[in-house]
Amino acid sequence: MISGNEMKPPLDGIRVVDLTRVLSGPFCSMLLGDMGAEVIKIESPAGDPVRGQGHHKNGFSWYFASFNRNKKSVVLDLYSDEGRDTLAQLLETADVLLENFRPGVLARMGFPQDRLDSINPRLIVASVNGFGSTGPYTDRPAFDFIAQAMSGFMSVNGPAGEPPLRAAQPVTDLVAGLYTAFGIASALHGRNRDGVGQAVETSMVNGVLSMMAYLASEHFVTGENPQRTGNDHPLVAPYGLYNTADGQIAIAASNDQILRRLLGEIGLPNLLDDPRFASNDARFSRRAELHDILDAALATDTRENWIARLNRAGVPTGKVQTLKDVFEDPQIQAQEMAIDVPHGDRGDVRMLGFPVKLSRTPCEVRLPAPELGEHTEEVLASLRRHASG
Amino acid sequence: MISGNEMKPPLDGIRVVDLTRVLSGPFCSMLLGDMGAEVIKIESPAGDPVRGQGHHKNGFSWYFASFNRNKKSVVLDLYSDEGRDTLAQLLETADVLLENFRPGVLARMGFPQDRLDSINPRLIVASVNGFGSTGPYTDRPAFDFIAQAMSGFMSVNGPAGEPPLRAAQPVTDLVAGLYTAFGIASALHGRNRDGVGQAVETSMVNGVLSMMAYLASEHFVTGENPQRTGNDHPLVAPYGLYNTADGQIAIAASNDQILRRLLGEIGLPNLLDDPRFASNDARFSRRAELHDILDAALATDTRENWIARLNRAGVPTGKVQTLKDVFEDPQIQAQEMAIDVPHGDRGDVRMLGFPVKLSRTPCEVRLPAPELGEHTEEVLASLRRHASG
Repeated sequence: MISGNEMKPPLDGIRVVDLTRVLSGPFCSMLLGDMGAEVIKIESPAGDPVRGQGHHKNGFSWYFASFNRNKKSVVLDLYSDEGRDTLAQLLETADVLLENFRPGVLARMGFPQDRLDSINPRLIVASVNGFGSTGPYTDRPAFDFIAQAMSGFMSVNGPAGEPPLRAAQPVTDLVAGLYTAFGIASALHGRNRDGVGQAVETSMVNGVLSMMAYLASEHFVTGENPQRTGNDHPLVAPYGLYNTADGQIAIAASNDQILRRLLGEIGLPNLLDDPRFASNDARFSRRAELHDILDAALATDTRENWIARLNRAGVPTGKVQTLKDVFEDPQIQAQEMAIDVPHGDRGDVRMLGFPVKLSRTPCEVRLPAPELGEHTEEVLASLRRHASG
Repeated sequence: MISGNEMKPPLDGIRVVDLTRVLSGPFCSMLLGDMGAEVIKIESPAGDPVRGQGHHKNGFSWYFASFNRNKKSVVLDLYSDEGRDTLAQLLETADVLLENFRPGVLARMGFPQDRLDSINPRLIVASVNGFGSTGPYTDRPAFDFIAQAMSGFMSVNGPAGEPPLRAAQPVTDLVAGLYTAFGIASALHGRNRDGVGQAVETSMVNGVLSMMAYLASEHFVTGENPQRTGNDHPLVAPYGLYNTADGQIAIAASNDQILRRLLGEIGLPNLLDDPRFASNDARFSRRAELHDILDAALATDTRENWIARLNRAGVPTGKVQTLKDVFEDPQIQAQEMAIDVPHGDRGDVRMLGFPVKLSRTPCEVRLPAPELGEHTEEVLASLRRHASG
């Protein structure tokens, strides 16, 4: 047994050859890099298109920087024989190949699964794609908006009585990337025992569909489609945004115990004795009336006071925060969810911190996002040593 | 090296002692179980509250069934000395302890980190919570709605000019559970090398905040708050829902190459020569006008035809599907994203399939969701054998 301060990050020693671009795949490889893997980002001579996207500072895209920390950049032209030969050599030394092409593209580039197996039987071949590699839509191009629409996500997002709505966050890319990272880490653990790699795949549609949670199980058991209900809970009241003396608070009183605490704290301890509000069904059918009663009671104090008082009483309460609010929030600061990363001449880049906290080997930025091809020489030289060694 | 059909699932042989209830934690342990781990769900004599939630069939909650496949249920009263002693014995045999109490509760129950280290130095102690275990909000109760509000998620979800909106899906629970599963799998891999466990933690707020993606990086570089833009893209046009002869389609023409394909296919190949639409900035400032032009062109054919034609032309196109549509979709069926799982006398329960596809050891339901305490005897008997062995 070794002590914590000698320990290496969980995925230290794992080499990921990363052919992905834009979002789902680069997010996945960033997560692997944050956990200590060596991520070799293969870029075409033109580079990942995200290098040109979003606002730039000192000539550098902060969007690119934030998704490509802890990676090396190697430029290879995979349309050339030489580029593909180099990729094959690199794969001999790799633990994971990550790609987010449409299914079949990697094989047409000269790397079908059987060749990958023969190059390196220990290789974990991980794919993130739009719809999965079997079925009628395999060849379709996929963007987040389409995956949100096709997966059912949009059908339940939106105010009651209003049209279906996409989320602004590219949730389908990110959820698929995160699932793929989980699949890869699991397969790496299994490989320690079994000695062989395998293919790991997640699609954007399947990933976000699996987040339908009880909306899906209720659909399966009742046969009904879940409806859009905006900020109201589809089953529980009170639950939503309420007005205080100086702004709104979000309250989730989703069981009787919490509801009693809420009513006690806001000075309505006897409300549940009123038959109009005695059961959840009764409250739910009089949601608007109940909302007004709560607003009146909450008008007696300020938002910040209610948030403190109600949480102290054990009632989940908060407020809607903008991103500016979020990063000024002492909790988010204590959790180091914004970090400043030096990027040489490009200056410091602020980006999101690490959502997974490890006690002995905390995630860290060992490498800032690379310049295009910054590590081509280094990595190719190590391959030549590998070949002659 | 062993062949694929002798291989075991990646997390085979890993024992997870799971103290979690409701959603974030049970989702995490389900993911670990799907990957082959033995998950021992510790329930109070009253059971996980989800057993009583959602629609029941044959006396069984399908919501509970869908989140608790691949688990054993052991009833322990952790308020009693005997229950806590049994937990300590169980932890000697475990690889992972998973909990979703508020931070500090596990220690107050008699299991501070140093005791856990002494019981089992290889133990990975994983926590899912609302706000993280350091900072001023540590003790606050957390529900998905509050985490959506506090994290900035709601600030960008919603139609333009309308109030902030929660997503109907419990995204903060699920994303935190998935991150925790990734952290655990990574830590398990690292433990194969280093021999020691460590603590792994994710919060609901941090998890979903890390999904703000370029919305966060743009905020950091510009200092501006991202705005709600509904189904419109904040930067790109055309992008959104458009009318065909018989219904709407979702089109994401987010770069010039795709836009040219779109305009060619819908019979407007020269539109980009018109100075009113020649650049993205120009198109973006005339979004409504452009929308009408596209609607007119798309009125010439049906929704299904356009989806086929545009995807064939390389334009990401789809439609908003309800859950009923989703599970009738041949792609979703080919991907086996709804599965029927026999539950003995309870009958078959339909639930979501597996979003991570593994080529050699596909995920499967080895155990249906357990009856309360179904495995208490079996697991306690194995502990007695362990103690006397």
